[in-house]
Order: sequence, then C-alpha cells, then structure tokens
Amino acid sequence: MIDYRSDTFTKPTPAMLEAMFRAEVGDDVFEEDPTINKLEILSADMFGKEAGLFCPSGTMTNQIAIKCHTQPGDEVICEELSHVYIYEGGGIAFNAAASVRPVKGDRGRITAEQVREAINPEDIHKPYSALVSLENTANRGGGSCYDFAELEKIKEVCKEQGLALHLDGARLFNALVAKNEKPQAYGQVFDTISLCLSKGLGTPVGSVLLGDKNFIKKARRVRKVLGGGMRQAGYLAAAGIYALENHIDRLAEDHQHAQMLADALASKDFVRVINPVETNILIFEVKGRFTPQGLVDKLMNEYDIKCIAISRTQVRLVLHLDVTREMVEKTIDVLQQL
Amino acid sequence: MIDYRSDTFTKPTPAMLEAMFRAEVGDDVFEEDPTINKLEILSADMFGKEAGLFCPSGTMTNQIAIKCHTQPGDEVICEELSHVYIYEGGGIAFNAAASVRPVKGDRGRITAEQVREAINPEDIHKPYSALVSLENTANRGGGSCYDFAELEKIKEVCKEQGLALHLDGARLFNALVAKNEKPQAYGQVFDTISLCLSKGLGTPVGSVLLGDKNFIKKARRVRKVLGGGMRQAGYLAAAGIYALENHIDRLAEDHQHAQMLADALASKDFVRVINPVETNILIFEVKGRFTPQGLVDKLMNEYDIKCIAISRTQVRLVLHLDVTREMVEKTIDVLQQL
Amino acid sequence: MIDYRSDTFTKPTPAMLEAMFRAEVGDDVFEEDPTINKLEILSADMFGKEAGLFCPSGTMTNQIAIKCHTQPGDEVICEELSHVYIYEGGGIAFNAAASVRPVKGDRGRITAEQVREAINPEDIHKPYSALVSLENTANRGGGSCYDFAELEKIKEVCKEQGLALHLDGARLFNALVAKNEKPQAYGQVFDTISLCLSKGLGTPVGSVLLGDKNFIKKARRVRKVLGGGMRQAGYLAAAGIYALENHIDRLAEDHQHAQMLADALASKDFVRVINPVETNILIFEVKGRFTPQGLVDKLMNEYDIKCIAISRTQVRLVLHLDVTREMVEKTIDVLQQL
Amino acid sequence: MIDYRSDTFTKPTPAMLEAMFRAEVGDDVFEEDPTINKLEILSADMFGKEAGLFCPSGTMTNQIAIKCHTQPGDEVICEELSHVYIYEGGGIAFNAAASVRPVKGDRGRITAEQVREAINPEDIHKPYSALVSLENTANRGGGSCYDFAELEKIKEVCKEQGLALHLDGARLFNALVAKNEKPQAYGQVFDTISLCLSKGLGTPVGSVLLGDKNFIKKARRVRKVLGGGMRQAGYLAAAGIYALENHIDRLAEDHQHAQMLADALASKDFVRVINPVETNILIFEVKGRFTPQGLVDKLMNEYDIKCIAISRTQVRLVLHLDVTREMVEKTIDVLQQL
Repeated sequence: MIDYRSDTFTKPTPAMLEAMFRAEVGDDVFEEDPTINKLEILSADMFGKEAGLFCPSGTMTNQIAIKCHTQPGDEVICEELSHVYIYEGGGIAFNAAASVRPVKGDRGRITAEQVREAINPEDIHKPYSALVSLENTANRGGGSCYDFAELEKIKEVCKEQGLALHLDGARLFNALVAKNEKPQAYGQVFDTISLCLSKGLGTPVGSVLLGDKNFIKKARRVRKVLGGGMRQAGYLAAAGIYALENHIDRLAEDHQHAQMLADALASKDFVRVINPVETNILIFEVKGRFTPQGLVDKLMNEYDIKCIAISRTQVRLVLHLDVTREMVEKTIDVLQQL
Repeated sequence: MIDYRSDTFTKPTPAMLEAMFRAEVGDDVFEEDPTINKLEILSADMFGKEAGLFCPSGTMTNQIAIKCHTQPGDEVICEELSHVYIYEGGGIAFNAAASVRPVKGDRGRITAEQVREAINPEDIHKPYSALVSLENTANRGGGSCYDFAELEKIKEVCKEQGLALHLDGARLFNALVAKNEKPQAYGQVFDTISLCLSKGLGTPVGSVLLGDKNFIKKARRVRKVLGGGMRQAGYLAAAGIYALENHIDRLAEDHQHAQMLADALASKDFVRVINPVETNILIFEVKGRFTPQGLVDKLMNEYDIKCIAISRTQVRLVLHLDVTREMVEKTIDVLQQL
Repeated sequence: MIDYRSDTFTKPTPAMLEAMFRAEVGDDVFEEDPTINKLEILSADMFGKEAGLFCPSGTMTNQIAIKCHTQPGDEVICEELSHVYIYEGGGIAFNAAASVRPVKGDRGRITAEQVREAINPEDIHKPYSALVSLENTANRGGGSCYDFAELEKIKEVCKEQGLALHLDGARLFNALVAKNEKPQAYGQVFDTISLCLSKGLGTPVGSVLLGDKNFIKKARRVRKVLGGGMRQAGYLAAAGIYALENHIDRLAEDHQHAQMLADALASKDFVRVINPVETNILIFEVKGRFTPQGLVDKLMNEYDIKCIAISRTQVRLVLHLDVTREMVEKTIDVLQQL
Repeated sequence: MIDYRSDTFTKPTPAMLEAMFRAEVGDDVFEEDPTINKLEILSADMFGKEAGLFCPSGTMTNQIAIKCHTQPGDEVICEELSHVYIYEGGGIAFNAAASVRPVKGDRGRITAEQVREAINPEDIHKPYSALVSLENTANRGGGSCYDFAELEKIKEVCKEQGLALHLDGARLFNALVAKNEKPQAYGQVFDTISLCLSKGLGTPVGSVLLGDKNFIKKARRVRKVLGGGMRQAGYLAAAGIYALENHIDRLAEDHQHAQMLADALASKDFVRVINPVETNILIFEVKGRFTPQGLVDKLMNEYDIKCIAISRTQVRLVLHLDVTREMVEKTIDVLQQL
C-alpha cells in the first residue's frame, strides 16, 4: 500500500522510536517534563522566539494563537481556503468567538495589498480587525510558498494598522527547505508561529506554538482550559527533538518525488491543470475519463494507492517520509498504464 | 437638510406619535404589555406564522434567530455583503459562536445552486452547515429583490439537506410592495423572519421576529439574556401597529423617488454604473471628477444633502418617509448643476 | 388591583408621559439623538463619571459591563443571590464566557474580607479573578444597603489585587435616599455603575451604564453586537431625564410604606422572620397556616393584591410609584383580617 | 525523593513502557489507529457503554462531555469543590458558555435532594438546568466515595427532570476497588463517564470519554475543534490498555498506604482533623506549630518529601504507583520525628 492521503500518516522510524522510549519524562502540567522543556526551548531558539508551548495538535496551536490574539467579536483575516478557516471545525468562531474575513488568494497566498483592503475601518457596525493568519506552505494552494518579501510587506501593514500576525507553519519546514530560507527570518516577521511536528517531520503527535514569553504564558492557560495539558508527554516531544535534528533536510526528497509524479501526470489525457509543484504536495484537476473520486477509487481498488479528492474537480497527492523512491516509481508505472 | 443616509433616520409622523401616546402598556418581561402582545400577533398573522417577538432592533431579531438556529461551531451560509455578516459587529461569532460561509451573489442575492455548493459534507474537519440567511431586499445590492421562485428553490435545498432558512426582512415590505407579493408566501418559505419597523415603516424603534411557537419561546429566553427584554415598551410597539396599518402602501412613493434620482444621475459624467433601482435604495459608482467621499462632502457642505459613501467606489442614497417629493426635486436640481 | 410584584410594573405619570412625547429625537446608533445624549451626560455628571450609555434594560447594562471587564475564562466574584448571577439568564457565561464565584453574603452584601478570600491565586488550573460585581440595594437581601465604608474597603482590595469593581445599581437611588449618600461618592468607588430607570424611578424602559470614556466606547460596540442599539429612543430617554429630576426624593415614601407593611405583618401568626426594612422591598418568611404560594394566591384571588413567592419559604412585596398610601392602608386592613 | 503531590506524577513501569513501544499505530483523526480503537472499545465494554473517545487529558474528556450535554446559557449542577468547576480553568464557561450552580456537599458528594433543590424552575430569568456532574472519588473530598444507592437516587431525579448525568471518573477505579463495585453498574447510572488513565492507573497521558454512539460522534467533533485530535497516539493508548489489564487491583495498596499515613498522623499535635481515608488521598488540617505551607516546606526541604497545601488550612497527600511501601514507612518515620 502506498499512502499519499496526507503527511500526517507517517509512522516513526526505528531511530525516532528509540529516541522516544529513552526519553526522560515528568508532569508537564507542572512544567516538569525535561524533554518537553527541551523541545520548547530548542524550537523557540531555532526561530529566534522567546518561548514555545508543546500541544497535542497543530489545530490546537493555531486555535490557541488565534484565541490569544483576539477578543470575541474581533475579525481574523486569512486566505479563503486556509486550514484555520476550513479544516479546524469552525474553531475560530467556536473557541475565539471571532469573525473571519476570507480573502481569495493566489494558490493560498494573499498579498499585503489585499490585507490592507480587508482591514475594517473604525465603525461599531464592523468587527475590529485584530489578526492576520497566513499559511506557509499553503496546503490547499498545493504546497505553495510565500515570497518572503511579500511576508515583510504584510508585516508592515500589520504593524501600521495594529494587527497581530500569525503563521500556520504546519509545513513551514517544507518552505524553508524549498526556498533555502532561515527560520530566524520567520521569527522576526511573525508574532507567533505554529509548527507541526507530525507532518513532514514524521513524528506521531504534536505541534509547538512559538511566541514571546507573555504570549506563551497566556497560551499555557488556554491550553489548560482546552484540555491540552498533558502529563508525561515527553515521549512525544522526544520524537520532535529527533525530527528537528534529523528530518528537516530530507524534505527535499519529498519535493523531488512530488515533481516526478507531476511530470508523469503531465501527459495524461485525464489531467487538466497541475498546480506548480513547489514542495511535497501535488494538486491536479481531473477531466474526461475520470471524475476525481473515480480516479481515487480506481487507484485504491486496483493498485492499493491511496489519495484524496479534495474538491469536486481536484485530486491531491502528498509526499512524505513513508513514501519511498521505489513507491514513487511504482506509482509512475501505474499512472502510465492508466 | 435632506437626509438620504438611511431609512433609519425617520421620525414618527404626528398621527404615529399620537398612537404611541395613547398606547396601553404593561411589563413585557411578564408578557403583560397589551400593545406589544397585539403587535406580535398582528405581524405573525400577517405572515402566517404562529408567534412573534418584539425586540429593540433588527440586529437583535437577526442575532436571536441565528443563535436559536445554530450550535456553537455550526456554519451560516449568507451572501458576502449581507447585513448579518458585515454590519452586525461580528455578532454571528460573538453571540452564536458560529462560522460564516460568505457567498458572492448577484447584487446581494444568492442562488439555490450556490447554497447547495456551500453546504459542507459530513466531515469533522468542517463546520456543520446549519442555516441559510437571506436578505430581501438586499441593502448592499441596492435594494434588490429576490425572485420568489428562487426563494422556493433555496427552501427545497434547505429542506433536503436539513438546514434552517432565515430571512433578514429589514426591508421586506419594500420587496412586497415592489413585486406585489403576499406576506403569507414568505411565511411559508422561511422558518423565521426578522421584520424591521424602524426603516421604511418609519417607527422610532423596533423589530419583530416571527417563527413557530417553540422557536419564539427559545427566542424569548435569548432576548432576556441579551438584555433585550424591555418593560412598558408598548409605546414603541404602538408605532409598529400604526405603521403596519398605514405605512406599507406608501413605500411605492419611495421607490418612485429612487428611480427619479437614478434617472437624474444617468447622464452625469461623474457617474459610472447605477445599480438597477428596484425599491428605495440607489447605489451608484462614482468616477472622474469626484471620489465617492468627495461627492458626499460636496453635497453635504454646499447643499445640506446627506448621503454615504458605502465603499471605495460607491455612494448610496436611501429614500424614506422623511424625504418628500419636493426634496427629491430639489436634489435633482442640485445634481443637474453639479 | 394593588401590584407589589416588582417596581418594574410602574407606568409613567402624566407629566412624565408629556415629557416623553415632547422629546426631540434622532438616530442614536449614529449618536444623533439629543435627548439620549442629554440623559447620558446628565447621569454621568451626577455620579462624576466621564460617560454614559443608554440601553434597553438593566440586564443589558450589567451584561455589557461584565463583558467589557472580563475575558472568556475569567471569574466574576459576586454574592450568591445577586441579580447578575441568578436573574439574568446565565448571561455571565452566555455573553462573557466568564465563570462565577458566588459568595454567601449577609442579606445580599459581601465583605472586603470575603472578596479577598474569593480571589484565585495565580494558577493555570483556576480562572483569573477579574471583576467584583456588587448590588446596592440588594434585591434578594430585601432591599438591604451596603455600609459605604465596606464598599471603600472592597475597592481597596480590588485595587491592590487588580480587579475591576462594578455596581449593579438597579435600585441605587433607593440606597442614596435611605442612607442620605452622594452619587459622586459611588462614582469614585466603582469603575462602572449600571443605573436602572424603570424600577423606583418609574420610567417605562431603560438603563444607563456609567464609566470612563474608553470603557463606554468599548461598551457601545458591545451594545451594538447584542442588538441594543436603538434608533429614535429619545422618547424613552426623556422619561429618564424627567425621573432623575423629579422622582428621586419621593422614594422615601416607598420606604415608609414598606415599613408600614412590615409593622402590620410583625404580629401575624403566619409570619416567621421579616427581613429588616431598609428601602422599598419587604421580604418575609411564611409559616403555619400558609405556604408562601398559598398566601400569594389568597391575596390575589380574594383581595386583588399581587405579590410573589420568591423562594420555598419567602414572600416579597415591592413598593413603588404606583402603590399609593391608600393602597398600603387597604393592604394593612387585609393583612389584619387574615 | 518521595512525591505525594498527585497521582498524575507517575511514570510508566518497564512493562507498560514495553507495551507502548510495541504498539501498532495509525492516524487517529481518520480513526485508523488500531491501538486507540482497541482501548476505546475495551473501556466502553468494561462499563457497558456503546463507545469511547481517547483524549489527551481528563480535563478534555470532562469539558467535551459538558459541552455536548449543554447549550450556551444552560446550567451545570455540581459540588462546589468539584474538579470541573475549580480546577479546569473556568472551562465550563470558556468552552460551553454554561453557568455553574455549585452545591456545598459532604466531602465532595452531593445528595439527590440537593440536586432536586438546585434545579431551576421554568423561568426566562434563570438558566435552564441541563446537567448534573458528579466526581467519584471526590478529590477535594479526600478521595471520598459515593454511596451507590445515592447515585441511583440522583439518576432518578435527573431522569424525572430531564437532566443529563455525567461522571468525572478521574479516580473511579479507586472507588470501584475500595467499594468492590462493578463498572457496568456505573455505566447504567451515568449518561457519560470520563475515565482518567494517567492518575491511579499510571499511564503517561490520556483519558477516555464513554457514552452512547451518537454522543461520542458529537464528542469527536468537539475534540477536533478543541485541537484534541491526535495522529499516531496509539503509543499512549497502549499504556492505557496495559493499565486496564494490570493496574486496577493494585490500587488497594495505595489505599492501605494512605490509611497507614493517616494512622501515623493521628497522634501528631500539629494535626487537627483528618478526613476519613476511603481511597488513595489523605487530607488533613494543620494547626499549632505549623501552617500548611510551613509543613509542606519543611518536608520538602529537610526530607525530600513533596506534598501540597491545598487550602489555607489543609495539606494533601496522594498515594500512587510510584510511592512504595518502603517510602511510606520512611515517611511515617519522618512524621514521628516531627
């Protein structure tokens, strides 16, 4: 079986698993888990942030950040297909009672000019615009990466207008590798960053929220009230430390694999548009002989290859640690036969 | 001074004021205000609904309806410029903790097909689609009216998919008059209707929410917790009764006046597009010699004519009870000189 | 019929009604209603506060204050029978998502020492203690009044510990008259005050929230999102101005009447404990021949006298503008026959 | 070091760690983690419930249950020192926007009669009473156990009045062992049960929420929106399975140890009242020579024994898997010297 459904499906490598079970642990609600403490410091340092907070999911780090940046009734500006808006169960409203101003972007990315236009004027009829939340890479944009200069421009608009700037960095390491960028630069632009450890990095569970000390103190309170405070979760954090030390550079392979698959699809008659491949996600439109779900079902039933129809027209393949070069080549063979 | 800013600026006529002054009142929190009770029954009967609830504003009747139709985390489908979404202070999130799925419509109106596409599939990542909220006439659509057959199609989609259907009828009477429609037909299509008394109908304060008995019972609880339960508010309700009996037919004059102004604007070089005039609202794009705000300022400062720039390109004029034929003619004179 | 159920049942006097219908009005959502503006300034000045906000009910002024003083998850300290906690539909949780720490007081009044003990230590397991809300007079305490020196001590604790201090002054004028206190002194002790106009003061509808300018600016936003922004509500505000100018001193009569009724009850065999009468509310325990509801029903059915059984043991009588000396004397006759 | 602070501080035994290490895992957001699925079924079966949901903490299982049983504005009845009310960060208000009616119980336990009295009558002024949440054993009651007959009576009141009944079973296994009760009996009385695996059972992380299928379906949605959906968390669930199979009976030792410590304390001059020891928690009042914090500090600084002062008068010792008989005996020696 070859599983392209999501990079969340990865299982720890033997070395990662060994690191996990050698971990020294303690009660993290009392901030006594040495491995979690180490992971929080390690990741904060990497991005030049003061503090970090380990959470059970990227949804939780995003939701906590949005909650802490807003008051009920405030408005969050984000791209219209961003994960925080369409894949977190309506959490912006549920957890933060905040409104969303979705902006139609270019493959998941919005511009500083769009941000400026989306900010509400001072008027009691309109929500107060409090936060811009970006996603890099953008999942529904097909793993697209922001141009860093645009991020700096967005930061300028936020500063000038008094909005906070959050990054959903579920796949930030893919962008860093693809664009050869420095984590510290992101730490300077964003007030808070949510890093996911269980996607490209391949750990079983966990995400880290980065910010300044006061923010993380508030965030720790919100984590508790949401039920995200875990006890001896250092076993999970150990996988995160291992991944940060060993699994970042290898993301380049996933990016190559995505491009190989895109090349193989390019000549197929049932493929309409293929989103430019920038990282580990490949999104293409299906036409003619197959519906998206029909193609997905055929690959699953006849070839044991799993992927997802993410809209009425599109199929998505995600590359990751558990898809080897051999599997990619086998998939290409299958595609050529279709 | 001629005030086209909004039909909310009207003041009671002498006859309405006298009706108010003579009202019999009681404590409405205990459901003992006979005039409020009469207004609630009168308006419910008019639309063929079981019950009504008098509230201090149309924002409150809309917000209560949305709250009672949803659970926190649910999603509301509405047009992207609808009042409930952009002019009620982010209340859908604040009061109901519900998400919004804004849909780009045609002058404020969405189609049954768009509703169908906006409904989320069963998936824990996505909010549960619980409610469709329409606005008729559509304020930001320039007082545009729905085609009733489309409303019936939307109702079919809602029934089939298990969504509730609410109408923000802030200016429903304008639509009824313009299209010569029957209130009862709206009562059959919509689960709940918010009627505003202080816009075209010209009362000082108030709105009525219509629905079935169980819904209004729930709504009464929510009105209390929001602080909308008033005591001897029968003075305000009396104006509503007077308006329902005397001010509906005259809306046709406002519609004529809007068309007269549109005709006068049609030939002006600083006017780009004029939204088709269907009722009492006139929205046009400004170009060339004036910016929207520049035109608004000139009319205000030089001619004592008030109106509002509602976007970076558009100016809006709203006709109502306190804008007489004479005022409209004077305005046309002014426009011709500009 | 004699109605002791609540001082909310009063109807305007002819003079108040005349003041109402002579009022100059405008659209208060745009802050253009001169009568509302006048009432807000008048009441703010009276208490030495910077600004005021007219709202449709005391529940709304209390709820807005609590919302603006807290963040979701914060805790409000109040007496366990206070109106904000038990009679506002669970609004502290519904509107502000704040927890309540109810404290058992002495006839509705709590002490500075109790406040100090109720404040949570810094601990992520516990809500952050953000606000103390007091009620003076205390309704369920039988119209009991705080000793002003205790209020000053509570203020000290709040200042020292960083909590805000709100006053539910639904019946504050009764306390001012009974204790011969100055409004300005209350303005100095409390960050915000909710004044009700439709209880002892006898207006049909309305309450004013007082605070500093920034607070009232925030409050105006919350009023809008709750749907409390009304249009030409100056008719109601005019009653408030009239009441502030004419109906305060006469509260002393209501207090006398309450004492007269208490004296008459003192010797009855079916009365156990009578709460000390300090203002216009009389609460007594019923024993022996009657249950509370039985007594209420007998008075209603046989003598057309209305009152309420407020608990399994207690009956409450509330004196107000619409209960004359003659009615009180008639009631005493009835009580003597029972 | 001997750590009596909480039974949350336990670390996995070597055998538990090995079970974790060998776990088969998958993506639990897609319900594909076989070990989590097994744990959910195993625990549901044990209590005769239809379904289970694995969550990162007992706070989350409690909060999800409360959320799913209530609407915003509803009221939850619980003992005034119950964990859901005082130790979950104000989550009942934060997550569910529900009010709390705290009831003063007997060592953390309330009676059916108290529940009946705490239910609000139908009245729009008062929150709707929707849920009773009990805690067994009761932490702040000193590990006290409910009499099962009283639970059945409370169930009767709930059924009759239409309230749901939830059990915070953070330490339910301690009660089952101490009273020799059957899990299935609890499954019959309670609509939902929150089981904690990381207290007496000794796993590093996790809690299971039990209920019927529809409830757990709703709960799974709420877990997602709170950010509690984890990926390959089967490593944690494996510890839970191991604990359910191996760590229940041994709780009796913890109970013996608690009694041994209580006996040792009984004769000390600085001990006032010792709560009856029913399970693994020992709470006693400190007087005379020591303040509670003074005693805690002395034990910590001079003897490396950790415990917590849980109030201004009380110290708490919690027995668990990582406190051996030898450690208890050493502690008794220390206490005798004090």
